Amino acid sequence: MTLPLGTIVDALGGELHGDPQLLIHRLAALDSATYGELSFLSNARYRDQLSSSQATCVIVATEAQEEARARGACIVTNDPYLYFARVTQLWRRTHHAAPAPGVHPSAIVDPSALIDPTATVGPLCIVEEGVRIGAYSVLKARVVVAQDCTIGKRCLIHPGVVIGADGFGFAANAGAWEKIEQLGAVRVGDDVEIGANTCIDRGALSDTVIGDGVKLDNLIQIGHNVQIGNHTAIAACAGVAGSAMIGANCTIGGAAVVLGHLTVADRVHISAASVVTRSLVKPGHYTGIFPIDDNDQWEKNAAAVKRLHQLRARLVALEKSRLD
Amino acid sequence: MTLPLGTIVDALGGELHGDPQLLIHRLAALDSATYGELSFLSNARYRDQLSSSQATCVIVATEAQEEARARGACIVTNDPYLYFARVTQLWRRTHHAAPAPGVHPSAIVDPSALIDPTATVGPLCIVEEGVRIGAYSVLKARVVVAQDCTIGKRCLIHPGVVIGADGFGFAANAGAWEKIEQLGAVRVGDDVEIGANTCIDRGALSDTVIGDGVKLDNLIQIGHNVQIGNHTAIAACAGVAGSAMIGANCTIGGAAVVLGHLTVADRVHISAASVVTRSLVKPGHYTGIFPIDDNDQWEKNAAAVKRLHQLRARLVALEKSRLD
Amino acid sequence: MTLPLGTIVDALGGELHGDPQLLIHRLAALDSATYGELSFLSNARYRDQLSSSQATCVIVATEAQEEARARGACIVTNDPYLYFARVTQLWRRTHHAAPAPGVHPSAIVDPSALIDPTATVGPLCIVEEGVRIGAYSVLKARVVVAQDCTIGKRCLIHPGVVIGADGFGFAANAGAWEKIEQLGAVRVGDDVEIGANTCIDRGALSDTVIGDGVKLDNLIQIGHNVQIGNHTAIAACAGVAGSAMIGANCTIGGAAVVLGHLTVADRVHISAASVVTRSLVKPGHYTGIFPIDDNDQWEKNAAAVKRLHQLRARLVALEKSRLD
Repeated sequence: MTLPLGTIVDALGGELHGDPQLLIHRLAALDSATYGELSFLSNARYRDQLSSSQATCVIVATEAQEEARARGACIVTNDPYLYFARVTQLWRRTHHAAPAPGVHPSAIVDPSALIDPTATVGPLCIVEEGVRIGAYSVLKARVVVAQDCTIGKRCLIHPGVVIGADGFGFAANAGAWEKIEQLGAVRVGDDVEIGANTCIDRGALSDTVIGDGVKLDNLIQIGHNVQIGNHTAIAACAGVAGSAMIGANCTIGGAAVVLGHLTVADRVHISAASVVTRSLVKPGHYTGIFPIDDNDQWEKNAAAVKRLHQLRARLVALEKSRLD
Repeated sequence: MTLPLGTIVDALGGELHGDPQLLIHRLAALDSATYGELSFLSNARYRDQLSSSQATCVIVATEAQEEARARGACIVTNDPYLYFARVTQLWRRTHHAAPAPGVHPSAIVDPSALIDPTATVGPLCIVEEGVRIGAYSVLKARVVVAQDCTIGKRCLIHPGVVIGADGFGFAANAGAWEKIEQLGAVRVGDDVEIGANTCIDRGALSDTVIGDGVKLDNLIQIGHNVQIGNHTAIAACAGVAGSAMIGANCTIGGAAVVLGHLTVADRVHISAASVVTRSLVKPGHYTGIFPIDDNDQWEKNAAAVKRLHQLRARLVALEKSRLD
Repeated sequence: MTLPLGTIVDALGGELHGDPQLLIHRLAALDSATYGELSFLSNARYRDQLSSSQATCVIVATEAQEEARARGACIVTNDPYLYFARVTQLWRRTHHAAPAPGVHPSAIVDPSALIDPTATVGPLCIVEEGVRIGAYSVLKARVVVAQDCTIGKRCLIHPGVVIGADGFGFAANAGAWEKIEQLGAVRVGDDVEIGANTCIDRGALSDTVIGDGVKLDNLIQIGHNVQIGNHTAIAACAGVAGSAMIGANCTIGGAAVVLGHLTVADRVHISAASVVTRSLVKPGHYTGIFPIDDNDQWEKNAAAVKRLHQLRARLVALEKSRLD
């Protein structure tokens, strides 16, 4: 598996300084790259790794080009990280066959499902009645798409994903729970990627809606009636509870939780493991994590947290006595 | 898909004010309902949406009936939310065929398993030796029920669920781990619902036990030897560690964690994302979440939390000096 | 299912005090064991349960042997917990057939995969091209091992596991996300156990690496490029974000989170539900959990936490004024 530098630049643009015949055998990180490997510098933090990198060629921005050219071949481009992403895409389509369109013989597909002929339904997938799957979408393997759910175009859905299981809805009745049948479905937009074993529940009355370009990592829970705006990305193990409305172009860190019925504005960034307990109506970066510490220190501070409002009252009293 | 109001009231009771011939095309929330739709008012918070709702009919309690009748058709009942739940059930059984009993030809079922003839084992399920599945229970798709586990009556188990994988048990041996074989099983009671990709581990020596009427959402982990009392409901992404005993009629919020070997009393309500680190022996509502904030604010407060017990010591010193 | 005490001691060593013909029908915990059952005492905390235990035989350490012999049969050994683990192993291999080697007819295995003839690939597993699976490893059911990933010897992989789905990598481009193809794979060492529905993502450029003897519980997320050192154990619902390096002989509690690109030293122990936001370069026990409390108390303390740095400033002012 090789690509000459010239082929890369012909396909993706950028300004090549170096021999277009040079063969790239692998893509690699700057600090570990060796001869025959192509790397990139996108984060100024790693700038000092540039001159000593053993990579055959490095993708750099204009401001690093002088230093890059001093050490060997380089490709100069506006956005080295984006360029690198496109090299990975070129690499894959050069060296790996695209998934064959069509339905794997082991998949269980209801005859009423409308699957675009360019879409791929992988092995052991289950596609129930009334489902629609758009052009060029790929269900990798062991994906369930339940009754009446729709998947847009160019989606990539990883193994174990469950789309359209029942939302969690019950009415209390004399100490027991009565089921609220979940009569909505799930609508997934175009260019959505959904990670392994992630679950998106069907709506109770109306649909759960995942916008265009949304990226969901593994093991995420999306509750019923949730709406997620376009191009929002959510990292693994996060949970969005029922009827929450997440804006567009948000990022939600891994294991973060958004409680039910809340609204999160566009361009909100939530740190990993933070719990959104109120609507966030302004763009910004929000965090709520108990800081990790040596267990002994933590025990003392946690005990103090549990008496914090008393401590505050004592401070107020002292302040007052000072004034007397 | 329609239902006349008269049919609904004939099936479910309640006092209809309005024309029994009126056709309902859909169920909808109060604020989004339009003509031909049936809605409900169960939460006083939404009372002000009643008069302006475009719903053809609204399910209300006695105290709202005057206002409801002023705007159009209504069904008066003691508990509008429970009534609404039953309308969703009626709606589903009217418009969707119940899952056909029997074992889907793609399921892998051990011949020693005892599956009630009224139960449904969906596509690509795996039912191992010695398993028993009770009357009218439904395994939707891709469910694993491992060796010797039992499922009660009228259970609903969503795709991707794994019941009876090994509990996490190892003995340390010279820096490595030796497996403790998990010789117990899982016993799931009657009327239990289990959400997509949830895992319930088999017991180490005795069984893991899920009580009657328990409702588990998606992506939940139930460790080995856990016992969950009747009618307890647990929201998505929660984890209950090994040998914890959860009482009856509890609610556990999403992403909450109960540590191992703890006891949680009946009627305990745990907020989402809270970590239960000690037994909770009294009914009540418990919470432990670091409050979310602008990241800048959070950084300052988190730093202060890490020095909180020193701060407390300084306050004590000041109080003392005041007394001098 | 029975085993005579003599057979156990012949197989596993230890000093038996009692009749080797005594039949053991079951293994059980000390406080619940009854006649015909074998139990163990490994934790001094349960010492007072010894004399009243109804177990037919108890596995004990030397220091408890006098008391144990006073009550009936016992097996004396250095490490009762390890001995008990081995009894569970003996019990299983005596009473349950080992999984038959070979590929279940319902599994979908690419012809290029190299599966050791002693390995077991269970029902409805998917093994993609270029995969290698080592001797005596068992894929229970519904396991996906994606392209080019390798599994070592004697691994046990529970249902629903996904090994080698794409890591979560995207480059921002004008408000949308462009995929970074994940060109690495996953390498799982020897003697690794992986719990139900756990996901291990393939590396972006190089491989994600799980060391020998690592034990992963259920519903865990391991991000791309992560490295986990030998004999580290991670409890359920934990998440390790991309490019984190976890040392050897660590334990990570359930629902704990390790952020991306961090380093965790050998022999670090992280409490359940703690969030590792910085590298932990020294062995030790680390915790970060907001203490759970009555909801009312929590509300007051949480409010105070949000103003903690102001409170600190007020204390500093008071201290200063005291000095004036």
